[in-house]
Amino acid sequence: MKKLQPHPPISHPLLEASPELWAGVASTLRKKSYEEEDRIVSHGDMAVNLWLVLSGWVKLTRQTPDGKETIVELCTEGDVFGEAALFPESHYPYTANVVSGGTELLAIPATMIRSLVATQHTLAVRVMTLLNEHISQAQLKLEHRATMSAAQRLGCFLLRLCQVQQAEDKKTLQMPIEKHILAAYLGMKPETFSRAQQQLKPLGIAVSGQTITVNSIAKLRMFVCNSCSQSGSCDVEVAG
Amino acid sequence: MKKLQPHPPISHPLLEASPELWAGVASTLRKKSYEEEDRIVSHGDMAVNLWLVLSGWVKLTRQTPDGKETIVELCTEGDVFGEAALFPESHYPYTANVVSGGTELLAIPATMIRSLVATQHTLAVRVMTLLNEHISQAQLKLEHRATMSAAQRLGCFLLRLCQVQQAEDKKTLQMPIEKHILAAYLGMKPETFSRAQQQLKPLGIAVSGQTITVNSIAKLRMFVCNSCSQSGSCDVEVAG
Repeated sequence: MKKLQPHPPISHPLLEASPELWAGVASTLRKKSYEEEDRIVSHGDMAVNLWLVLSGWVKLTRQTPDGKETIVELCTEGDVFGEAALFPESHYPYTANVVSGGTELLAIPATMIRSLVATQHTLAVRVMTLLNEHISQAQLKLEHRATMSAAQRLGCFLLRLCQVQQAEDKKTLQMPIEKHILAAYLGMKPETFSRAQQQLKPLGIAVSGQTITVNSIAKLRMFVCNSCSQSGSCDVEVAG
Repeated sequence: MKKLQPHPPISHPLLEASPELWAGVASTLRKKSYEEEDRIVSHGDMAVNLWLVLSGWVKLTRQTPDGKETIVELCTEGDVFGEAALFPESHYPYTANVVSGGTELLAIPATMIRSLVATQHTLAVRVMTLLNEHISQAQLKLEHRATMSAAQRLGCFLLRLCQVQQAEDKKTLQMPIEKHILAAYLGMKPETFSRAQQQLKPLGIAVSGQTITVNSIAKLRMFVCNSCSQSGSCDVEVAG
């Protein structure tokens, strides 16, 4: 892990919400580069930073006393984790590990973000919006477990990937993370994941190694989004 | 549905966080009583109130375009819903229906809560804490779907009920909602729910109609909480 000095302006939705505010503190922010499998924070650590993902992928996991691991979230460009840092004496409720090369994060010290939120109402509202979005995302994932087939859940992730990788209607995507990690995140056993891949073939989705070809995003969207309550108001429907 | 005038002080954790602040606006707050099956708000309605549950149970649901319904949350005493009201021009992301008799809610107008949050930093932090708790709850439910058996998930709900109904170690509980609603909330088919009930019998859990006898909360906790990453830091472990 290398520490780099920031080269402002660093681009991230949270910073762009109040650029003039961040301009004043940019020099104290630390942008960090990570290698795959680097551990960023551990479950139970004191939350000393709020983390912004600038590029790459980060896996948030938790372990139960009887040894089961679950992936709480996969974060990528534009995502934020470590919200516990907003509250004094709080601990990270998960372990964060890097799961793709070329991952860059920005660490905002807990004391800094708390004092900014205390004095800048615009930022407080932005943070509340962010927390509310996280609630929506978690609730939506719960919904998808109940309403969607495994193939639809995989399709939904591919639509998110189309958006992150700024796909046009027909697109070749690169799978950014190991398939077994994605399968676990989507709540599937490896054999269910393989079957889901097969079931997407008739829709023009071809998977070869880490390369995925999506023949028609519109067709994929039709297959996936009809089983989602956010249909019509979701970011993945804007891409392509 | 009857509208009642408030009889301050109304007891709720959000209000107790800043009692002097609420004292000034208490007279404008509306406490409302509902009957079972009353609809409080509809998915997509403009979010004009933040809702505090004073007593009873409320079901938050969403529907997909292809007609599947999921229960996003079951709210009871002390819970808050309608956080969309914190943000201008926002819409409720679910429908809220009353699912038990004797349900009382407090409606805080969106304009009032937004202006209070804008001027009172203590309240802003309390609201952020609340949002963060909602994230944790949703993430924990996702985890439980992956790590817990149906019997453990039912056991976890019974522990929550022990807490709400302030059970001592041995306790007779009243099931406050229809079993099919609880089964849907826990992501189970009715037959899985019945099997889960049977599997809890050897632990001293007897279900007869709407009455549930829990012989030993400690024993139930041992069965459930070993498969949960929050083990040791969860509210249900404090009860009893």
